[in-house]
Amino acid sequence: MPASMETVAIFGVGLIGGSFALALRKAGFQGRILGVSSPATIERALELKVIDSGVTEEEAATAADLIYLAEPIHRILERLPALNRCVKPEALITDAGSTKSTIVERASREISRCQFLGGHPLAGKERRGIDAADADLFVGRKYVLTPRSGADTATPAAALLLEWISKIGAIAVLADPDEHDRAVAYTSHLPQLASTALAALLPENDRKIDLSGPALVDMTRLALSPFETWHDIFSTNKPAIQQALSNYIRTLQAFSVMLDSQRMKEQFDRAAGAAKRLRSDE
Amino acid sequence: MPASMETVAIFGVGLIGGSFALALRKAGFQGRILGVSSPATIERALELKVIDSGVTEEEAATAADLIYLAEPIHRILERLPALNRCVKPEALITDAGSTKSTIVERASREISRCQFLGGHPLAGKERRGIDAADADLFVGRKYVLTPRSGADTATPAAALLLEWISKIGAIAVLADPDEHDRAVAYTSHLPQLASTALAALLPENDRKIDLSGPALVDMTRLALSPFETWHDIFSTNKPAIQQALSNYIRTLQAFSVMLDSQRMKEQFDRAAGAAKRLRSDE
Repeated sequence: MPASMETVAIFGVGLIGGSFALALRKAGFQGRILGVSSPATIERALELKVIDSGVTEEEAATAADLIYLAEPIHRILERLPALNRCVKPEALITDAGSTKSTIVERASREISRCQFLGGHPLAGKERRGIDAADADLFVGRKYVLTPRSGADTATPAAALLLEWISKIGAIAVLADPDEHDRAVAYTSHLPQLASTALAALLPENDRKIDLSGPALVDMTRLALSPFETWHDIFSTNKPAIQQALSNYIRTLQAFSVMLDSQRMKEQFDRAAGAAKRLRSDE
Repeated sequence: MPASMETVAIFGVGLIGGSFALALRKAGFQGRILGVSSPATIERALELKVIDSGVTEEEAATAADLIYLAEPIHRILERLPALNRCVKPEALITDAGSTKSTIVERASREISRCQFLGGHPLAGKERRGIDAADADLFVGRKYVLTPRSGADTATPAAALLLEWISKIGAIAVLADPDEHDRAVAYTSHLPQLASTALAALLPENDRKIDLSGPALVDMTRLALSPFETWHDIFSTNKPAIQQALSNYIRTLQAFSVMLDSQRMKEQFDRAAGAAKRLRSDE
């Protein structure tokens, strides 16, 4: 029996959840889009025509063919038992959490009545919330899915999700949950900490701010990101982040010693090569 | 006697020197602009109408009212004795070197026949060279001058330079040379090393590049910068950079311990505050 996707329920109608709803609509999705969020967010989401109606967790879980969990990681984890009680057996639950091992592991234990397939769209904005939602947020961005086995992406419901990911302009990338978490420790969590640490070294009323140019502005953009966004990420990926930090610190210590020597040129060449590869991959 | 600025000589007609020439013209400078650079650069600078003629070091020094040194720091240092032999007594020598203590100290010993006033425009681009030169490069950017005393900016020639800095759209900032170097260790040299170290942690053919989003692209932009630009900066500001690196490493070590604790929220708040101040200052 081919899967159908008539009703989508978005849990957490903020930047990511709201953008996913808008992107589905823009890509031609004709079904219903339900939202589960705070009353204020639901009101705004209805005003902005991001969702068709605001519903309870139970109503959403009972009706949806696709359940899209875009809340903070700890809320995603808390929802799983209740969702499992209400879901339709042919439904698919996916999420947009920034770490995957904990969520996928918990879902494997707690979601038994339908399929769960973890996800992580590599897209974002400095601004959060429903007002920042954007139908084009995922265009050209990678959208990671973290199946536990190859069979997880071969189900009709998963094939349909993959189809919509492609229709909204994103590029699906498959990764093992642990591999994902080890990689994003370097590509997302470490850059965040590197930026926050740079900004934390600028005390108030300091002459340094007078004597700063565009490079520092760029390098402290991520430091504007609030801790609320990061707490759950840090608590669910701690060993990998500490490992990445430790390698980063070791690299900086080596730089301090070789600063103006020719060995430093090799490091610059190697880094520039990696920075170019990142861009050719964009 | 009021200073006049009929002839400007640019040493090193690359991104900064070429942009300064173009910016002067755009701001209404009617005098002659001479260039001292490699034959290939002079040819291109003439083609692009950045300079009026290419001349020798001696011709430039003999004729110029303003001598603008925009070569790498070691070349600036090498030029000083020969310039001192040829300059007009009422001329002003300034430079655009990214570190100031070494240059200002050497100039105080070697430039006796005219005034020297160190400078550092806080502007740049990823691309270097005459083809990247841009009349608007300095617009809205800070332009640091590093007098050794208040009298240094009160001379007629210095007043005229300050006037042109303002006419090209830049914002003059005065700083002591050592204070400048200690500050830019944090605001420019450390961000460069932080970016290079992040990129150096991405080995070839690594899955990390597949699993990276826009944050890493931003944070590795500086890593594209070649070591040639940085060698002289590192060698003339080593203790201050090592001090900044050591504070940065200490901060990252503390982050690793407090990662998901409430103390980390204070660090994020503090960093976000500094990042906002940087932007309000823009």
